Amino acid sequence: MSMINRQLRLKHRPEGLVKREDFDLVREPIGELQPGEVLVRVLYISMDPTNRVWMRDIPQYMPPVAIGEVMRAGGIGRVVRSRSAHFNEGDLVHGLVGWQDYLVIHESAAAAYPRLPADPGVPLPRLLGACGTSGVTAYYGLTDIAPVEAGETLVVSAAAGSVGSVAGQIGKIMGARVVGIAGGAEKCRHLVDRLGFDAAVDYKSHDWKQALKDATPGGVHVDFENVGGDIMKAVMARMVLGGRVAMCGLISGYTGTSKASDDFSVIIVRRLVVRGFLVFDYKKTAQALRALSGWVREGKLKAEETVVDGLEDAPLVLNRLFDGSHTGKLVLRVDPQA
Amino acid sequence: MSMINRQLRLKHRPEGLVKREDFDLVREPIGELQPGEVLVRVLYISMDPTNRVWMRDIPQYMPPVAIGEVMRAGGIGRVVRSRSAHFNEGDLVHGLVGWQDYLVIHESAAAAYPRLPADPGVPLPRLLGACGTSGVTAYYGLTDIAPVEAGETLVVSAAAGSVGSVAGQIGKIMGARVVGIAGGAEKCRHLVDRLGFDAAVDYKSHDWKQALKDATPGGVHVDFENVGGDIMKAVMARMVLGGRVAMCGLISGYTGTSKASDDFSVIIVRRLVVRGFLVFDYKKTAQALRALSGWVREGKLKAEETVVDGLEDAPLVLNRLFDGSHTGKLVLRVDPQA
Repeated sequence: MSMINRQLRLKHRPEGLVKREDFDLVREPIGELQPGEVLVRVLYISMDPTNRVWMRDIPQYMPPVAIGEVMRAGGIGRVVRSRSAHFNEGDLVHGLVGWQDYLVIHESAAAAYPRLPADPGVPLPRLLGACGTSGVTAYYGLTDIAPVEAGETLVVSAAAGSVGSVAGQIGKIMGARVVGIAGGAEKCRHLVDRLGFDAAVDYKSHDWKQALKDATPGGVHVDFENVGGDIMKAVMARMVLGGRVAMCGLISGYTGTSKASDDFSVIIVRRLVVRGFLVFDYKKTAQALRALSGWVREGKLKAEETVVDGLEDAPLVLNRLFDGSHTGKLVLRVDPQA
Repeated sequence: MSMINRQLRLKHRPEGLVKREDFDLVREPIGELQPGEVLVRVLYISMDPTNRVWMRDIPQYMPPVAIGEVMRAGGIGRVVRSRSAHFNEGDLVHGLVGWQDYLVIHESAAAAYPRLPADPGVPLPRLLGACGTSGVTAYYGLTDIAPVEAGETLVVSAAAGSVGSVAGQIGKIMGARVVGIAGGAEKCRHLVDRLGFDAAVDYKSHDWKQALKDATPGGVHVDFENVGGDIMKAVMARMVLGGRVAMCGLISGYTGTSKASDDFSVIIVRRLVVRGFLVFDYKKTAQALRALSGWVREGKLKAEETVVDGLEDAPLVLNRLFDGSHTGKLVLRVDPQA
């Protein structure tokens, strides 16, 4: 019986929000495995703002996804057939799985698809969120890139998102005063009431800049930056001299439609240390994952995932990261039995 | 006999290059000194790109010069009358002297006007340049803000200017490969032939971006940034992963007429550490001045000053920093007998 693989291949580069028509849905039979190859069933796909950048033909940290190529995405899969001694059937792996049902991995690429424990002890989507890439990003941002100290004020933008929500909670664990910036009163209440932020600023309210000032009376020591544009500008204007910026993401510019202009002069005016980073640069993440899962167990870190079904809807699901409708980690379930 | 003080007071905020008419030339008699006051004859005024920013009503590291206020400027003066035990007649002092012939300092502000040695051993204009604020800026930029190591590639923009020319030479002293960016073939030849840069890129040539690539085959480890805009963008695109930027100045934007747009995303893409600084933050500069004057004595550091006469021409002289016509440290001589 030949199995069919559905793939979403980039058809043309989207403008603004992504449309279904920007992708070709291709169905093709899965061929025989060659020696050294394994077949992986994709279980969950991580929906990340950076996916949108990969669709654009601009300089970035990886080559853009080529027209005609399966859309690149991180995720978790299970080995369902193996012709490699490196993998057993049933193994859980994570890495770049792509927007598709199945992928074939050659054992020479095994390092890019590390195994997960057979029983990870937490729901698999969490291994893409607070106890995975999103959490590790937040962890290194606040321990290595722009370490935050007790008593300092930390501002986190996109604070209701997968990375921001963990970053803010790590700030609290470290004893900082934490101010989150998010869109909408509901998200802001959530940050304060459920996640324990000291204050939250709703950037959709007309007086948000004043609210940011009021929430940071002693200035801002550390900015965990996820957004860029006018929000970053307002935060940077509040920074103390010598303040630190962990430059994690600039989501406001990812769809290519932002009109905001950046301005480096604030870096001199406020003597900032601005440090860009990518979680992929950290090869050994065991320490971070141990800390994160420990905090989750102790109830200090609330992990939040939203799981949405349907590979074919991936483009529309991704848009939830850009239209402000989403909170926490967004995960696409590809295998209905996962 | 009452002495007359000429002052250039800001009349309205300039657009683009500065015009004479942007200032009122005021002549007023100097009154009697009060107890604790000294009268200082301004000898030399330092012409600095940052002066142009001080004329603008934008957020910056000091309050803008107010309309009607004497134009702020650093410089060197000599105490000609003293009613303070802190200063003797004949003392050389340096600090913010302003665009004027004389200023009155109260002894309570003595800390802002440190004394220079009676015989500094070098021409006074050099104490504003390579052996003064410009040199100290370059020194801390490459030893503290973005330390450059032997074998690394350093790019310096505005490399023929007062800070850039010293920064490039310090890079050579430290064993780095040094590439300067400057405007015009003559300046570029000067950087290589006289100052010992390994290469120079003429940003006025049509193929300067290619020339920058050719001059930095192994990428750029440290950017000593003085310019901003398109030049900075081109340099940042050449940086190695984890490269360091000493953000010293952004002169391309100082007149407020630049159309270039900044883009922070390169900071993430290339995982840069971008650090803004001001030389005024370094309170103890003896170590830097010792190193700089030592290098000058040993012939390792060539100090270059251009001295121009005429207080009343200060606005037009300042423009030389922005129209590309100047090399090295630009100093205005106010006292013809200095």
